[in-house]
Amino acid sequence: MKKMISQLHKAGLPPGTPLHVGELKSNTSLVTICGLGENVYWEKITDNIEECRKILGEAAPIQWVNIDGLARIDLLQEIGSFFNLHPLTIEDIFDTSQRPKQEEYEGYTYFTCRALSLAEITGAIESEQVSLIIGSSYVLSVSERETDLFTTTRKRLKMNKGGVRLRGTDYLAYSLLDMIVDHYFVVLEKTGERLETLEESILRKPDNATLQTIHTLKREMIAMRQAAWPLREAIVGLEQSGTVFVDSADSLHLRDVYSHVVQIIDTIEIYREMLSGMLDIYLSSVNNKLNEVMKILTIFAAIFIPLTLISGIYGMNFRFMPELEWLYGYPFALGLMAATAIVLLGYFRCKKWL
Amino acid sequence: MKKMISQLHKAGLPPGTPLHVGELKSNTSLVTICGLGENVYWEKITDNIEECRKILGEAAPIQWVNIDGLARIDLLQEIGSFFNLHPLTIEDIFDTSQRPKQEEYEGYTYFTCRALSLAEITGAIESEQVSLIIGSSYVLSVSERETDLFTTTRKRLKMNKGGVRLRGTDYLAYSLLDMIVDHYFVVLEKTGERLETLEESILRKPDNATLQTIHTLKREMIAMRQAAWPLREAIVGLEQSGTVFVDSADSLHLRDVYSHVVQIIDTIEIYREMLSGMLDIYLSSVNNKLNEVMKILTIFAAIFIPLTLISGIYGMNFRFMPELEWLYGYPFALGLMAATAIVLLGYFRCKKWL
Amino acid sequence: MKKMISQLHKAGLPPGTPLHVGELKSNTSLVTICGLGENVYWEKITDNIEECRKILGEAAPIQWVNIDGLARIDLLQEIGSFFNLHPLTIEDIFDTSQRPKQEEYEGYTYFTCRALSLAEITGAIESEQVSLIIGSSYVLSVSERETDLFTTTRKRLKMNKGGVRLRGTDYLAYSLLDMIVDHYFVVLEKTGERLETLEESILRKPDNATLQTIHTLKREMIAMRQAAWPLREAIVGLEQSGTVFVDSADSLHLRDVYSHVVQIIDTIEIYREMLSGMLDIYLSSVNNKLNEVMKILTIFAAIFIPLTLISGIYGMNFRFMPELEWLYGYPFALGLMAATAIVLLGYFRCKKWL
Amino acid sequence: MKKMISQLHKAGLPPGTPLHVGELKSNTSLVTICGLGENVYWEKITDNIEECRKILGEAAPIQWVNIDGLARIDLLQEIGSFFNLHPLTIEDIFDTSQRPKQEEYEGYTYFTCRALSLAEITGAIESEQVSLIIGSSYVLSVSERETDLFTTTRKRLKMNKGGVRLRGTDYLAYSLLDMIVDHYFVVLEKTGERLETLEESILRKPDNATLQTIHTLKREMIAMRQAAWPLREAIVGLEQSGTVFVDSADSLHLRDVYSHVVQIIDTIEIYREMLSGMLDIYLSSVNNKLNEVMKILTIFAAIFIPLTLISGIYGMNFRFMPELEWLYGYPFALGLMAATAIVLLGYFRCKKWL
Amino acid sequence: MKKMISQLHKAGLPPGTPLHVGELKSNTSLVTICGLGENVYWEKITDNIEECRKILGEAAPIQWVNIDGLARIDLLQEIGSFFNLHPLTIEDIFDTSQRPKQEEYEGYTYFTCRALSLAEITGAIESEQVSLIIGSSYVLSVSERETDLFTTTRKRLKMNKGGVRLRGTDYLAYSLLDMIVDHYFVVLEKTGERLETLEESILRKPDNATLQTIHTLKREMIAMRQAAWPLREAIVGLEQSGTVFVDSADSLHLRDVYSHVVQIIDTIEIYREMLSGMLDIYLSSVNNKLNEVMKILTIFAAIFIPLTLISGIYGMNFRFMPELEWLYGYPFALGLMAATAIVLLGYFRCKKWL
Repeated sequence: MKKMISQLHKAGLPPGTPLHVGELKSNTSLVTICGLGENVYWEKITDNIEECRKILGEAAPIQWVNIDGLARIDLLQEIGSFFNLHPLTIEDIFDTSQRPKQEEYEGYTYFTCRALSLAEITGAIESEQVSLIIGSSYVLSVSERETDLFTTTRKRLKMNKGGVRLRGTDYLAYSLLDMIVDHYFVVLEKTGERLETLEESILRKPDNATLQTIHTLKREMIAMRQAAWPLREAIVGLEQSGTVFVDSADSLHLRDVYSHVVQIIDTIEIYREMLSGMLDIYLSSVNNKLNEVMKILTIFAAIFIPLTLISGIYGMNFRFMPELEWLYGYPFALGLMAATAIVLLGYFRCKKWL
Repeated sequence: MKKMISQLHKAGLPPGTPLHVGELKSNTSLVTICGLGENVYWEKITDNIEECRKILGEAAPIQWVNIDGLARIDLLQEIGSFFNLHPLTIEDIFDTSQRPKQEEYEGYTYFTCRALSLAEITGAIESEQVSLIIGSSYVLSVSERETDLFTTTRKRLKMNKGGVRLRGTDYLAYSLLDMIVDHYFVVLEKTGERLETLEESILRKPDNATLQTIHTLKREMIAMRQAAWPLREAIVGLEQSGTVFVDSADSLHLRDVYSHVVQIIDTIEIYREMLSGMLDIYLSSVNNKLNEVMKILTIFAAIFIPLTLISGIYGMNFRFMPELEWLYGYPFALGLMAATAIVLLGYFRCKKWL
Repeated sequence: MKKMISQLHKAGLPPGTPLHVGELKSNTSLVTICGLGENVYWEKITDNIEECRKILGEAAPIQWVNIDGLARIDLLQEIGSFFNLHPLTIEDIFDTSQRPKQEEYEGYTYFTCRALSLAEITGAIESEQVSLIIGSSYVLSVSERETDLFTTTRKRLKMNKGGVRLRGTDYLAYSLLDMIVDHYFVVLEKTGERLETLEESILRKPDNATLQTIHTLKREMIAMRQAAWPLREAIVGLEQSGTVFVDSADSLHLRDVYSHVVQIIDTIEIYREMLSGMLDIYLSSVNNKLNEVMKILTIFAAIFIPLTLISGIYGMNFRFMPELEWLYGYPFALGLMAATAIVLLGYFRCKKWL
Repeated sequence: MKKMISQLHKAGLPPGTPLHVGELKSNTSLVTICGLGENVYWEKITDNIEECRKILGEAAPIQWVNIDGLARIDLLQEIGSFFNLHPLTIEDIFDTSQRPKQEEYEGYTYFTCRALSLAEITGAIESEQVSLIIGSSYVLSVSERETDLFTTTRKRLKMNKGGVRLRGTDYLAYSLLDMIVDHYFVVLEKTGERLETLEESILRKPDNATLQTIHTLKREMIAMRQAAWPLREAIVGLEQSGTVFVDSADSLHLRDVYSHVVQIIDTIEIYREMLSGMLDIYLSSVNNKLNEVMKILTIFAAIFIPLTLISGIYGMNFRFMPELEWLYGYPFALGLMAATAIVLLGYFRCKKWL
Repeated sequence: MKKMISQLHKAGLPPGTPLHVGELKSNTSLVTICGLGENVYWEKITDNIEECRKILGEAAPIQWVNIDGLARIDLLQEIGSFFNLHPLTIEDIFDTSQRPKQEEYEGYTYFTCRALSLAEITGAIESEQVSLIIGSSYVLSVSERETDLFTTTRKRLKMNKGGVRLRGTDYLAYSLLDMIVDHYFVVLEKTGERLETLEESILRKPDNATLQTIHTLKREMIAMRQAAWPLREAIVGLEQSGTVFVDSADSLHLRDVYSHVVQIIDTIEIYREMLSGMLDIYLSSVNNKLNEVMKILTIFAAIFIPLTLISGIYGMNFRFMPELEWLYGYPFALGLMAATAIVLLGYFRCKKWL
């Protein structure tokens, strides 16, 4: 998530120059083009410009062009010019530090948002930018690296479950968006588990590491909220664009995604509140520990110091000290000490310290 | 309440697939169908598809179909197809992690919200999703498990108090909604009692358990607010829908429910503020305890250490120490100690520590 | 103020049933009816239904019906049916836990808000609900118990100061509302004085009781804000209702009340901010005390422990210890101790602890 | 600033009664009337009603009536009746606890805001209410006491710099408002200096007095914000009133004042944030001091207690203790003590405490 | 950044007087005039009024006048009168404490915002005001001192990359604005690095200096947000002005800058949240240190005080103390001490303190 907040800027280049901004997450750019129609389904993969151009030329009611990886600017520019994309759109695709947004261009709608996933080893939340370009006969989806985000969609298209292939580019775009939003739930669920683990560890053994975990999670939740909030607005933008999702059936589906995003935002809020609570409990535990330590010190000091005084008194070298001559002077002194100790112990017990 | 934030997501299924999301709270689905009219009242219970279809076919001015439990997807789909419900509505009914909302579909209004109740043993706040589908001649209510939420409404319908049966589906839907909102007050009242108990226990014996109770209650209040806030919006949605609650009399009743929800939200805010105050008092109590402990330590140490020094001095083995030879040297030393102790005690009394 | 947040709910009764919700603050219901006109003024008090009906039948350009106490539901229903009040209005009057609001009904405007007063003995802020029903020829005001809230208004009406009696029901309603809002200022002023007392006591002797007073005041301010905020909206509602306060002169007066309420809200904000400040100062005082205690402990321990060591050294029983044989060994040891003490005192003085 | 929050209310008087609310800041009411025109300038001062009436009767294209002090209600009523002011306007002028606001009356615009100044001796922020009444041929300005707020404006009018006298009442009102807003900057600048002093004193010698200064400043900033926020709205009200500042040139000037007020609000926010930061640093300093004290105590105790034990051991009276008989027993014991002390010092140095 | 909040006010001068407000950052005013056209490019630098007037007279499709430094009021007034600028515009240019804003004047649009840069030595964030005046055939840009902010733009114009010179004043203004916004990213990136350094230093060695750095950064972030927030509004103002950026192509570019500013604001929020987290960790570290210190004190005191007691007991001078006569009394006493120490060490180990 840290990468979201570094390498944000582009050197003073003329606007409209497609330049990669942000960490480059893949060294290749793999183009997968699917031709979709009632009885049509073909899928071709390439990373060659010539070949790409040829495949794009093949007729199909709907074309879904998916690009994984942003390494090949030339390839994207070729595809962009094929679909008449505005230079600013191309530039935006390569600026991977963007805020989710939806923008109307002539002939297509541009939509960008962040897809979340969990890092395999560390379990940290990773985020990458996914751009969708929705035209009347094509959908172009660009992600920062090869993911299995859209594998399920592709399978469903192949099998034409629910007549997916007949339903136009809006429905295809909706399916892709739905997939992205579903992955937010996966991440949230995992975060929920981490929160539970954390809660236990706070009670068991609170240390500075726990505190840092709390803050790491807090920051991740903020970053997630910063991905989800504008996503919500962007979906409203899609709904009101007037060029896509005009059909009421598609609009219903979009409303569904919208309510999912709202639910995600709500859950993030609950998580943040939980983290605040944990912070309080952590700080209180530390304080309680200090109290505990101080009580023990006080009890030890308060009991032994008077006893030491007694021993000191009978260690004085005065010539005339009657107790010293007593036969049972020593047991008397020990008894005095014991009595003092018992009285003090009773006092601390009555103070509920023991 | 914890269950609200787990199992949120649905695997990558095609949209419109009715699949249960969230914890399954009942293993059955019990359908209760009531036929209502001026002189008509019948009530039939079934969990058999065939039978259900037959009962639904029976004529009555208004039908109220109540389903308890989400276990039987087939049953709900049957009823859904009888009333021409949109697949997304069916899907939404089964997704029990939804945010309260109101949506217009062709021929009916879909309304979903959370009903709150108190767990019998633990007293924890439990929440379940209740969906209402309001058509022109029927109301369909779906809850996650068998509850006595609507028992009172059913009695009133049977006895036709206030001509309830004559007043159309809007009024019936309002009655059900009113019941749900009334239960929020029950929960709030109980929470109020818990807050009072908590307040006393903070002053009597503040420990880490108290702190956790504070945070549990805080989180419950947040979850409740997250149930109440969108409920308010959903009721506004009902009021503005243009298809239900168009009659001004019904609209007045809805306004009444609306003001109840606003009142609930206000009370939640007060409770949250009270909890924040308790947190402060708790933390301050812990600090005060530390102060108390430290004062006692300081008093003990500050009084006995000088006395020990005196005893140490007269325990020194110098050959020429005039006091040691004095007849009243020993009482003199004891007197010196007593005097020192009294001076120090006076000092601490004047510091208001004793 | 605590009573605002308990007994909030009504058992599952059919809507429109007038049932008292909240603590019953009076055992009677006293009806005072005033007939007002240019040359007309009469005032009759009763708690008998028959008599009440008769008085209401007496003609007067404007009738002001004031009811103190909610004990007699039958009486209110009688009056309600005389003025054709909607059942929901009657229900609202008896639900004393309502949020301030303004609602349009056929033939009248319903307005409810909270009147504040100070408890005579404890000085706590008390709040009761006051409902105003403004018709074209009558004003009905209902309060929870006998108060002297409207005594001044009555006097002024009797003396017809400023031609009050000529100015219609809007002006009468405004006068009542103005009285209610004026009492908020009385409460705020008293609270201001309590804040000053509190501030002094924090500096003089901060203890847990002070902390609780801070939180009691905080909570009272929240409750007051929750009374004042919706009052503001309700007044806006009156202004925009289109049925009352349509005359620009009356509208000016209402604007005046509105700006008073805004001023009240501002003052509450300042008070809350002051309370937060006091909380900080309180916590800091507690911390400072701890520091003070620890410094004294440290000074005592750090000075006397080395001296004790010296006395211990010369208390050792080695056969060959030259100092012990010195003639001035004892004074030398005492001098060593004094020197050590002086050096250490100098050290603490230079640390600015003394 | 404290005076803003006391004496807020007016006893239950009929509305429209001009009664002074708030602390009376002056015992007189001095009226300064200026006649302004292209070639006209006269200025007359009086506090006599008769004389005042006569001066007001003298013709001049524009009359600027300035009143300093609210002691003479009769004088203001006379002037009010001359200009046909609404009784509520008069009442508002005397209620010095008002929120800044702008109100349209027939024939004039009423504008009230708070003018800030610094108390000469204490440097505390003082605030007084200034009311402006802007008619088509006169401007009436009322302040709570004699100030030099408008001295510069008067000079400029006398010299007719920039043709001020020709520019109508809007421009005159704008000049007065501009003066008031400029004084906010003076106060802010002084506050900035106090913040710098405070910051240093926190680092040098943090005590409870520092804390109180922080909270005093915080409260002053809140009061200032409560003066500045509604002022902003009131200026917007002026701009949109439709009766004043309709000329686009005047509107530009008003926009300028508006952006100054926004800048003031921004600066107040920064100051508040700075104060929060100082509070944190203060609390942290107190904590650090405690740490410091505890370290010293720990070092003293941990070093001398073991040494005392050693001396205690060799002070035991066992008959058979070989060390006691050694020739170099005493130096050996002293050496043991020194060694122990050195080891412990090394330990604390390695802990980085020394 | 501190300079943003000092010297805010202008003495009581008549409005419209160009007077420098804020710290004067340059002692000169250097005018660079560029003539731009399809085949035209010339660039002339002067600080002489006469020369300046002559150059301005030279024809060119577009003139870009850039002024570095605000020292020469006369020069700016000359240029202002050449382009018919309103006196308030000139005044605003010299008031360097302004909030970013956009204002429409007759014939031109006035736009002002803050350009950020990093101080060369200290790395502190510096901010200066840049004003843009966009006419139909000229762009006037004024900055507070000589910067290299627009060097890249100038190069690009010289080389006419992307046909920049053909695209009108809107595009030129956009290029300048884009440069300014790009520098915000540079500053943010540097701040991100400082945050990382800070985070490490908190864990390594938290002291009061760390705390102050946190607050310095917090304040810088607030100042940056106060520069960025109104910038966003000002850009919206440009978009909606109706006189500039009316062409849809230019509007797209402006939308791009807008989304950059939103991204900047988002990043600032994340940074602020990170700083809050660091503050928590810092305070917790301090607390933990105290705990650490107290544990060591407690362990030392609790172990050695009992041992001292034992030694004291056997230092008592009773005549009849059997142990003293034992042959192995001394080893026995030492053994008792060792045993006691071991038991206590075991106790603390079991408490997990060791």
